Amino acid sequence: MLYFLNGKFVVDAQAVLPVSDLAIQRGYGIFDFFRLQEGVLLYVEDHLHRFLRSAEIMHIPVHQSMEELRQILLELTKLNGIRDAGIRMVLTGGNSPDAWQIGIPNLLIMQQELSIGSPTDEPKAVRVITHEYRRELPKAKTINYTTGVWLQKRMKEEQADDVIYHMEGRISELPRCNCFVVLKNGSVFTPDSDILEGVTRKRLLEQQEIPIETREVSLDLLKDAQEVFLTSSTKRVQSIISIDGKPVGSGRPGPVATRLLKILHHTERRYIESARSTAH
Amino acid sequence: MLYFLNGKFVVDAQAVLPVSDLAIQRGYGIFDFFRLQEGVLLYVEDHLHRFLRSAEIMHIPVHQSMEELRQILLELTKLNGIRDAGIRMVLTGGNSPDAWQIGIPNLLIMQQELSIGSPTDEPKAVRVITHEYRRELPKAKTINYTTGVWLQKRMKEEQADDVIYHMEGRISELPRCNCFVVLKNGSVFTPDSDILEGVTRKRLLEQQEIPIETREVSLDLLKDAQEVFLTSSTKRVQSIISIDGKPVGSGRPGPVATRLLKILHHTERRYIESARSTAH
Repeated sequence: MLYFLNGKFVVDAQAVLPVSDLAIQRGYGIFDFFRLQEGVLLYVEDHLHRFLRSAEIMHIPVHQSMEELRQILLELTKLNGIRDAGIRMVLTGGNSPDAWQIGIPNLLIMQQELSIGSPTDEPKAVRVITHEYRRELPKAKTINYTTGVWLQKRMKEEQADDVIYHMEGRISELPRCNCFVVLKNGSVFTPDSDILEGVTRKRLLEQQEIPIETREVSLDLLKDAQEVFLTSSTKRVQSIISIDGKPVGSGRPGPVATRLLKILHHTERRYIESARSTAH
Repeated sequence: MLYFLNGKFVVDAQAVLPVSDLAIQRGYGIFDFFRLQEGVLLYVEDHLHRFLRSAEIMHIPVHQSMEELRQILLELTKLNGIRDAGIRMVLTGGNSPDAWQIGIPNLLIMQQELSIGSPTDEPKAVRVITHEYRRELPKAKTINYTTGVWLQKRMKEEQADDVIYHMEGRISELPRCNCFVVLKNGSVFTPDSDILEGVTRKRLLEQQEIPIETREVSLDLLKDAQEVFLTSSTKRVQSIISIDGKPVGSGRPGPVATRLLKILHHTERRYIESARSTAH
């Protein structure tokens, strides 16, 4: 597989960064991740927009326009010639002579085979734990996953698939996903602050069939919910059926998550068909 | 200059890591930093101990014993043949096929020429701002400096040299230094929790002449202090003469910081003389 690294296409095994890079020295950088599905870069505009926004928040200069980045992505995926993949664009803090100040950033685009298939009829069921934490500079998709990676050991011990972060009694997000709750009265909420605004989350907020309110969501509300589910580009919609060992609602994927997964799938199909017809 | 990288000594410009490393993918890794002074690895036992402890906290396996690491350091500094340097040992989360799980760690030791000279009679004076933040997993020296690097822009704008972190009304530390306050009654305090336990801080706590109490230090106490100072391996003791634009005490380096800098210098001299006589 070829990667893109600072203007060149290089074989994946040869893609390296100097150890002076601020990503290695100080864990400093931003990235974005999205899917190539059936040869179409899914929701690429949203991801590129967020990528540039993350860089701006983190004071890392980007020397390409959104259109130039898009052209690089098209060229890379054409060269690699696979139809279903995960694309990871990373912009590091760059080579820093004093291991402190932001240097000249390194732009890296990785591609890996990834096929998540069509959604099943029912969302996948996952178990989560909770952890008190708020991401640093949550609006930026930084490479800092110190707490998320560190928690994997505990998740394994507690046989959990993932973790919901909370702080001062309010939930925010999972390390790599957004979170939604369905109350017993049918209202659907998703946290509005201290989160990374996911592209799948955005798609759900745009649909009209099931209204979703963005607002503060307390930990108490979460634990008393009828349904809880997560969203991400690779997981689409998954139902959280237990939190800290206690079942959520019926303890099975619920109707709201099931319906939203279906709606998301239609949105995805429409995007792919539309992108294809534009390309022809 | 030679670096050590996974069992080999390599020329600095050729020291690279694969982009699949978890440091680049997720900002995940630990490190330590100390000085080679007059050919002696200053307080190397403390630094190696902390390095191993950081790795343990962060679930990163280390395949060398403390003695083996020490031998590598001795060989590296001998090969480079310079007498005054900064040494940075980094242990990354390693090559991770899924950019999430901890892989096989990369061990990197960098050496750079660094001579900080003998202490001046009076500590250097620095200006700081404050920022609400607590480091993730503060007892581990992780590579995550997302907030510290990000704050550099604000520091520049406010003509500040550094920043003191606080959370819930209590101060903890600076991004790369520990913090001490001297009250108007002469008591000296340093925060006891949510901090990285610095080796210079340890030296000051060990000295008997000026008792220092480790305890909670409120932001109010800080702002009403007679003297405030910071410590680190490269900065030794520096006086904080203004916080958020307001002068501390007399607005000049005070007698406690001045005296402790002198004591620290004596401790340093004793360590170096002792290490030399052991080597002969």
